[in-house]
Amino acid sequence: METVAIAGVGLIGGSFALALRRAGFPGRILGVSSAHTIEEALALGAIDEGVSLEEAAARADLLYLAQPVQVIIDTLERLDPLVRPETLVTDAGSTKRRIVETAARCLKRCLFIGGHPMAGKATRGVAVAEAGLFEGRTWVLTPLHPGDERQASVQTFAGWLDAIGAHLLWMDASEHDRVVAATSHLPQVASSALAAVVGRRAETPASLAVAGPGLRDMTRLALSSYDLWRDILATNADLVGDTLDAYIAELRAIRAGLDGEAARDTFAAGERLARRLRGERGASR
Amino acid sequence: METVAIAGVGLIGGSFALALRRAGFPGRILGVSSAHTIEEALALGAIDEGVSLEEAAARADLLYLAQPVQVIIDTLERLDPLVRPETLVTDAGSTKRRIVETAARCLKRCLFIGGHPMAGKATRGVAVAEAGLFEGRTWVLTPLHPGDERQASVQTFAGWLDAIGAHLLWMDASEHDRVVAATSHLPQVASSALAAVVGRRAETPASLAVAGPGLRDMTRLALSSYDLWRDILATNADLVGDTLDAYIAELRAIRAGLDGEAARDTFAAGERLARRLRGERGASR
Repeated sequence: METVAIAGVGLIGGSFALALRRAGFPGRILGVSSAHTIEEALALGAIDEGVSLEEAAARADLLYLAQPVQVIIDTLERLDPLVRPETLVTDAGSTKRRIVETAARCLKRCLFIGGHPMAGKATRGVAVAEAGLFEGRTWVLTPLHPGDERQASVQTFAGWLDAIGAHLLWMDASEHDRVVAATSHLPQVASSALAAVVGRRAETPASLAVAGPGLRDMTRLALSSYDLWRDILATNADLVGDTLDAYIAELRAIRAGLDGEAARDTFAAGERLARRLRGERGASR
Repeated sequence: METVAIAGVGLIGGSFALALRRAGFPGRILGVSSAHTIEEALALGAIDEGVSLEEAAARADLLYLAQPVQVIIDTLERLDPLVRPETLVTDAGSTKRRIVETAARCLKRCLFIGGHPMAGKATRGVAVAEAGLFEGRTWVLTPLHPGDERQASVQTFAGWLDAIGAHLLWMDASEHDRVVAATSHLPQVASSALAAVVGRRAETPASLAVAGPGLRDMTRLALSSYDLWRDILATNADLVGDTLDAYIAELRAIRAGLDGEAARDTFAAGERLARRLRGERGASR
């Protein structure tokens, strides 16, 4: 792996470049982005050169698509005539079924492996990129075909992910989307909807003076931009819909018995998950 | 104010005692709690003496009820024959209408002012009490009658709240309950229900490896004990029900248009509240 090209040099793409550098990657890093972003990424030392997608595809050993989900899909649809057969294409999309399907359908001339680094920040852009962003964080890889994980180029890529501190997790694209619908997409929708409702009911400054740290925790995700989330929700609508139905049903059951004991089981189950997530003992199911 | 008695020497009651001490309160602090808690509170130097409620009421200039909401209500119902007319009774209950109504009905021989310090921790008990718990935090006071806030004993109490670093906010009990239904009770129910649903859908360790920091934020409140929340929800059921209805309606609207633009307005409104809460500029409505 001598040349890496990153399409979409934002927080994730820029952090991947910085992380590779810090881990000792000796090759060349190309960036595909808007002129303004390329300038910023060059100034930060994240990339060596700004190029077109055509040039990136023609030169890269690893082509990393770190764009919003729908842009990744659009890129995959026109990438096949541009790539060299030796190139490994991967991506950072937050949903995997549609991306993997598109790659299987459109990308015939080279290898593709889906990816999803479980890292992020409330702020976007290469300006907040960090070499340590993926340290200790899970990086999901979703192969297209059985055995893809044993291909030499995939093994080399996986080695670099290990070198930048990420924890690799191999998963089927459908399983990935099912799990993140519950662990990521539902919490995002729950936070944005909660913040919207609280905003309408707490219009005076005094109202927010009465808010404790709990409301801060519960609205941190609501800082996220819909521009990214639009694609995520649209490409996982069926599974997010299922988890939302379960969430709404849970809330309705609590609502029906606020003056009784209706919420006791929900609180107990919620506490178990919260403790499991924090690795506390006696919290297993 | 020479003698303070605290009924319920837990996190809040114990922290109030430690905070008074650190602020230079020279008088005596009595505690009313279980034998085990009294022993712990004495060892921590939070209180000087463990006494019965009867003795506390007979000796205290300030009687602070820092118990769960229903226990506060029960205590208020039997307190009147026990108190001296000079005593100021106050409380730390998370809902205020039912407590203030009970005080107005039952406590005829002395002054009462409702209170709600907006501070807490995921862990309960005097062992985690802190002198600095109320520093920079809002402390709501809800008077029973117009003019109560000008009574000498209330002024003295308010002076000590100021000395321990709390920000006083005078509010009507109904307004308090309406605001906290949105800023505190709805977030708690949203967190517990979310954690319960995620727990059922993320049963394998691999599922939680895919969870990012967002799920941690969204489930911190779910660590809270239902033993406290049962009374809070029961004594604010009408207003919590209203906010839950609005939340469920918001979630249903998003659910109906996951593959379209349905959530755009919700995300925008949620982001505005999240920024207001963080004091960011350009975030006003």
